[in-house]
Amino acid sequence: MVPAPDGLLRQVQSPGDLKALAPEQLPQLAAEIRTFLIENVSRTGGHLGPNLGVVELTIALHRAFDSPTDPIVFDTGHQSYVHKILTGRQDAFPSLRQKGGLTGYPSPAESEHDWVENSHASTALSYADGLAKAIRLQHRPGTVLAFVGDGSLTGGMAWEALNNIAETTDLPLVVLVNDNGRSYTPTVGGLARHLTSLRTHRRYEQVLDLVKRGVSKAPVVGSTAYDVLHGVKSGLKDVLAPQGLFADLGLKYVGPIDGHDTEAVEQALVHAKQFGGPVLVHCLTRKGNGFEAAEAHEEDRFHAVGKIDAVTGRPLGAPGPLTWTEVFSDELVRIGARDERIVAITAAMTYPTGLHKFAAAFPDRVFDVGIAEQHAVTSAAGLAMGGLHPVVALYATFLNRAFDQLLLDVALHRCGVTFVLDRAGVTGPDGPSHHGMWDMSLLQLVPGLRLAAPRDATRLREALDVASQVDDAPTVIRYSKEAVPADIPAVDVVDGVDVLLRAETEPPQVLLVAFGQMVGTALEVGRRLSDHGVGVTVVDPVWALPVNPALLRLATAHQLVVTVEDNGIVGGCGARLAQELRLAGILTPLREFGIAQEFLEHGTRSELLTQLGLAPQDIARTVVETIVAQESTLSPEQAPRR
Amino acid sequence: MVPAPDGLLRQVQSPGDLKALAPEQLPQLAAEIRTFLIENVSRTGGHLGPNLGVVELTIALHRAFDSPTDPIVFDTGHQSYVHKILTGRQDAFPSLRQKGGLTGYPSPAESEHDWVENSHASTALSYADGLAKAIRLQHRPGTVLAFVGDGSLTGGMAWEALNNIAETTDLPLVVLVNDNGRSYTPTVGGLARHLTSLRTHRRYEQVLDLVKRGVSKAPVVGSTAYDVLHGVKSGLKDVLAPQGLFADLGLKYVGPIDGHDTEAVEQALVHAKQFGGPVLVHCLTRKGNGFEAAEAHEEDRFHAVGKIDAVTGRPLGAPGPLTWTEVFSDELVRIGARDERIVAITAAMTYPTGLHKFAAAFPDRVFDVGIAEQHAVTSAAGLAMGGLHPVVALYATFLNRAFDQLLLDVALHRCGVTFVLDRAGVTGPDGPSHHGMWDMSLLQLVPGLRLAAPRDATRLREALDVASQVDDAPTVIRYSKEAVPADIPAVDVVDGVDVLLRAETEPPQVLLVAFGQMVGTALEVGRRLSDHGVGVTVVDPVWALPVNPALLRLATAHQLVVTVEDNGIVGGCGARLAQELRLAGILTPLREFGIAQEFLEHGTRSELLTQLGLAPQDIARTVVETIVAQESTLSPEQAPRR
Repeated sequence: MVPAPDGLLRQVQSPGDLKALAPEQLPQLAAEIRTFLIENVSRTGGHLGPNLGVVELTIALHRAFDSPTDPIVFDTGHQSYVHKILTGRQDAFPSLRQKGGLTGYPSPAESEHDWVENSHASTALSYADGLAKAIRLQHRPGTVLAFVGDGSLTGGMAWEALNNIAETTDLPLVVLVNDNGRSYTPTVGGLARHLTSLRTHRRYEQVLDLVKRGVSKAPVVGSTAYDVLHGVKSGLKDVLAPQGLFADLGLKYVGPIDGHDTEAVEQALVHAKQFGGPVLVHCLTRKGNGFEAAEAHEEDRFHAVGKIDAVTGRPLGAPGPLTWTEVFSDELVRIGARDERIVAITAAMTYPTGLHKFAAAFPDRVFDVGIAEQHAVTSAAGLAMGGLHPVVALYATFLNRAFDQLLLDVALHRCGVTFVLDRAGVTGPDGPSHHGMWDMSLLQLVPGLRLAAPRDATRLREALDVASQVDDAPTVIRYSKEAVPADIPAVDVVDGVDVLLRAETEPPQVLLVAFGQMVGTALEVGRRLSDHGVGVTVVDPVWALPVNPALLRLATAHQLVVTVEDNGIVGGCGARLAQELRLAGILTPLREFGIAQEFLEHGTRSELLTQLGLAPQDIARTVVETIVAQESTLSPEQAPRR
Repeated sequence: MVPAPDGLLRQVQSPGDLKALAPEQLPQLAAEIRTFLIENVSRTGGHLGPNLGVVELTIALHRAFDSPTDPIVFDTGHQSYVHKILTGRQDAFPSLRQKGGLTGYPSPAESEHDWVENSHASTALSYADGLAKAIRLQHRPGTVLAFVGDGSLTGGMAWEALNNIAETTDLPLVVLVNDNGRSYTPTVGGLARHLTSLRTHRRYEQVLDLVKRGVSKAPVVGSTAYDVLHGVKSGLKDVLAPQGLFADLGLKYVGPIDGHDTEAVEQALVHAKQFGGPVLVHCLTRKGNGFEAAEAHEEDRFHAVGKIDAVTGRPLGAPGPLTWTEVFSDELVRIGARDERIVAITAAMTYPTGLHKFAAAFPDRVFDVGIAEQHAVTSAAGLAMGGLHPVVALYATFLNRAFDQLLLDVALHRCGVTFVLDRAGVTGPDGPSHHGMWDMSLLQLVPGLRLAAPRDATRLREALDVASQVDDAPTVIRYSKEAVPADIPAVDVVDGVDVLLRAETEPPQVLLVAFGQMVGTALEVGRRLSDHGVGVTVVDPVWALPVNPALLRLATAHQLVVTVEDNGIVGGCGARLAQELRLAGILTPLREFGIAQEFLEHGTRSELLTQLGLAPQDIARTVVETIVAQESTLSPEQAPRR
């Protein structure tokens, strides 16, 4: 869908066009943008709720600031659709989030108005601090605008940045806080409470009231004294609660402002920009504003959507098959009912990680810590030290934020904490920041850690059951965003390694070791190779760490080991198995398959896997080529054995 | 040195003994503890300044709380010496920080009073939050005490934790803030300014003053009005600045208290414990208190000391040889003078990382961000986007805190940022949290990153020069805490790989690839092997990433590749080279030497390297064994070739 040719939106192809509009035209423009968003995103899927909430904020900031001389940095970037619409990219929206199409995040390759293409939450203030310091040091014109949600302020990085931004009193930087009271779920913690208090001015009014009452009780004092007191109001106002926390840090605070009042926001931003030092502008918005189905929805199902009905908001197509998340969600409730030591932790992702069922069943035993993976992990260590067994549910890619805490706070202290990593591997349309391709390499480094990559629902349930009873080390279970496949039975078990396909030749040639969601691919590779007369054993160790010694024994009985994982190839499970073989003096060659160690763009999982050479036919072909190369080097009698 | 037998200290072998003392005996006890600390730490080395500052705080907390029923968690733990003295470990102090001796951090293996053995900064509040939640959920007695420095509050984790702690109003948790205005260097940022304002009550007084002046200017109002105003003082007091930031979050705040007044601190802690919800007790102390040489020292040289004179504080023995830090320190000034795009970032470590010379030369171009590695890295990305070239100087182990930021914020955005990792490899007496054994494995995962591990001062200078000119990717330079060795010249250079020792046999047998500080070891191994008639080529690629293709070519010309690094063996440089050989179809076997993937205790570098099997004679022996095993498997004609 493109905008109506006779509408206002069609006239706006750059921030300059936007500035040419009269203020009274802006409500109409906002309405056109909302229609455009709903019509387009309901067809392509995407972050609908966040963008509906920031229509007026985005119009206002592009009128008050001069992008790109004034750099605009969006935190996480999924709320940049309106920005894209206003900077000349309307026609590309039908291709949103599709391979080769418009990205769902800002993209410097798409536009000079985009600075940060893809990042995890709470980073915008740090980028902006650096950009503003660069402008100041080089005496260049420009004021940086950092666009952050209230949820992002719960992340520790945001605090680190605010602490530094406040230090430099002449920093050309405006922080625009889009406060909708929620990230995925309602924003948590003391900060959320503080923002609420700012919203209502309660404490400020309270104090004025207290002063008034004090005065009225005083016998001799009349209206003059009251006027005097009122005269100090503006003096008090700077000190009292409305500026609160931010002013305490030394930041100039403006707000709260109705974030759906374009003129009010624009005026505040113009003043903030003129101030010449760091200013925080606090705007109140409603996520999903203007789309009734989204506004009314408690679980924030419209944060990111697939294809939906543009009126009712109902997903189009049949309900999807069972997901890994759902299997985990149900199983944790069962385990929690049996073992009251089980508690759960989420970093602002109760619904997406499937913890909502556990939360409903055991409301006292779930902790949403905000977008705060570091605290999630170390507080889990504390819970474990205190005799409980915490289950920390995260997206795989966000574990990167807490590697240090997993290593030193959990593993060094031998704390029994279960980590459940959802959205592992190739995830699809969210681009480099959301592919869970780092975890299995990172986790190799952590002494004593156990890692399971279950291949189906039964193995996931078993792994969770085992993990919940390990009280002297961290256990990690990782799985995909995909549908969970039908159970894949083992034909044999060799010392804990599941054999899924037995080689029909003797001696067997290829040992195919697969992990998690890639087991299905490996079985397909095994069948193809068998069809070509290659003797293949396909196994799933389920537990990737510690490396099962049975894999080493199996390797010595084959002529080539092939590993398949959807994790970065460098330092992953395949590389680790190769290392263990090497250190054990086993010379059987190994060829690993995994994600090329590059930043992976957006696209569907199957498109990306094919591009990466991880489709079954590609793996099978490469394996055959490897066998041929091996045979040309060494005759079978010479093949390396132990 | 043990305490005098007739003193008070000798009588205190547990917190119970401490509680039996009369309040008027405490100053004498404090004085005895200080003498004990100075006499012992001046002989063994250790964290003197921090512990001298917390003598009274520690006495007070062990009187107010009942350890271990009340768990006490020390942030970073290097200020736990007094705690150790008061919990039965006086006699072990002569062995402080020596292998097998008393650790420099709390240790659950040493005492039931110790909870967290070794961690990076800003973690205590998260541990404590978890512990307190576990106590509350299980209805057990106990109040958790988190002991944190003001510097630690600049770390984002502390904010994440405070935000959560404030959420649970009945959490049995007391936060004791030891505010000495500095971590290594003075604490920075808006927080530091806020703490100062709390310290002086300035804003609170200002407002009262404003109200008073307002009143006195009012013609009709007399003393009664003033009294009324004064009557609201207590009401105002809860709202105004003295509680400030912490109260805004919803935390009860008590303070500021003179942290060298044991009775005042004890009383505050007793009240805080009785409160039944989270309370923050803010105490002011002087780091190094009672040791004149330390108190007077601006650069905080006494944060951690080697062996020193117990009176003057001067280091014992001759001044040490040139360190890597010093070479970097001087070189960065030279590069900064030539290129004004160079700016420097430190996370509260200006002196220890050697940035003080750059800071003196270019005060506008250095940023101390506090203990905030995440912000350090992402603000560097912002600085680079703004046209500058930032140099981020960190200890190697602290990079773990910012892996996500390095990956997505710097590398994905192809920002030209130079990272300088000091204290890489085996560092010595600080235990698991300070060994820099993770960086070279982590860095393998980052697409596009360049990594140099220079072997001497000349190579460090060259690498820094190259890095400072790379503007489209992150570059990392890592080096050891040790003295920098005399220059090790190359006898040849093969496509960028320095050849340090040439094999005298033809064909050469062993290719020995060494990284950084281990080049000296590798040369010694090479000489030993040569003496035994093994043809060894010793090479240093200097640049570990990207893997130099010349290494692959050299590997095909040898029968065995041996790598030596002081980094975790899993996924390190050796493992990566093996992987590149494998993916290139090169079958030359490789044997890597590195640090066993376990948490490494404290000890001297040479003790630990020997224990790890990384002494030259051990490596040489293992290489010979590997060659023998290889020859027994394959005759020379059959040895794998490309």
